[in-house]
Amino acid sequence: MDELFVTTVVTSWKLIVNRLNERFAPLDYEQLQKQVAPNKNRLFYLLGHLTAVHDRMLPLLGIGERLHPELDEAYLTNPDQTISDPLPASDLKKAWSEVNAAITSAIEKFSIDDWLKKHTAVSDEDFSKDPKRNRLAVFLNRTNHASYHMGQIALTR
Amino acid sequence: MDELFVTTVVTSWKLIVNRLNERFAPLDYEQLQKQVAPNKNRLFYLLGHLTAVHDRMLPLLGIGERLHPELDEAYLTNPDQTISDPLPASDLKKAWSEVNAAITSAIEKFSIDDWLKKHTAVSDEDFSKDPKRNRLAVFLNRTNHASYHMGQIALTR
Repeated sequence: MDELFVTTVVTSWKLIVNRLNERFAPLDYEQLQKQVAPNKNRLFYLLGHLTAVHDRMLPLLGIGERLHPELDEAYLTNPDQTISDPLPASDLKKAWSEVNAAITSAIEKFSIDDWLKKHTAVSDEDFSKDPKRNRLAVFLNRTNHASYHMGQIALTR
Repeated sequence: MDELFVTTVVTSWKLIVNRLNERFAPLDYEQLQKQVAPNKNRLFYLLGHLTAVHDRMLPLLGIGERLHPELDEAYLTNPDQTISDPLPASDLKKAWSEVNAAITSAIEKFSIDDWLKKHTAVSDEDFSKDPKRNRLAVFLNRTNHASYHMGQIALTR
């Protein structure tokens, strides 16, 4: 029963990651320069941003070291078009796949107890006051974050 | 333990609904005519669309009859600007609040067993083959759907 609950949550994450994969995979560097709306983020920036945010999930969920901290400056701490893209499109797409594969592989092994442990950005004290600040909450938040940007990316079709 | 898992999922839903509420609440009919990008959906259409989709969650999750089926033609089965808006802005916002209140109130009473029951759009036979086609799957899908459109709505800021 618990296992099915967890599997359903993981499936929801896989669906949105696959949807983003399908959208990004066929696009080359030039096509990824398209903005989602006038003067808004480029697809390339959103690919970098989603990769950086998911990369940070590895330490946040306590499942590993970061794989691509080199993306933060261009895609997390600064707005689009202020820092040169640090990676070519093929390497950025590879980083995106690597990071998601690392997350999916780790969370598929989580028990319901693992999901309800605290994430690493909350203190023991704060967690004891609010046990909803668990790994599941972070994970659902990031799934919603990916959906949020997927909605923007869909506007370029 | 199970209860905490369920509470965390419901909290994720409430966060996105509140975020949409905050965005829609201060806007009048004229302001809601803004499109999220050139030739894309108006904010008014998205408010109607999200209300219709959430209204359909009531029978889908087996928690009640629909409250606002009159929205489907304008916001679900037809694209934006093909059917006249059936309700003024104040009534549409009221419908949005009513529908979300009905869902939240019902799901807050769900046990983990309730979440893992089949939703009403899947047959008994298909559900026995794939028990992931449960109410939780529908609910996470709709939470992601709301996030998807929130990402588009955020572009109008």
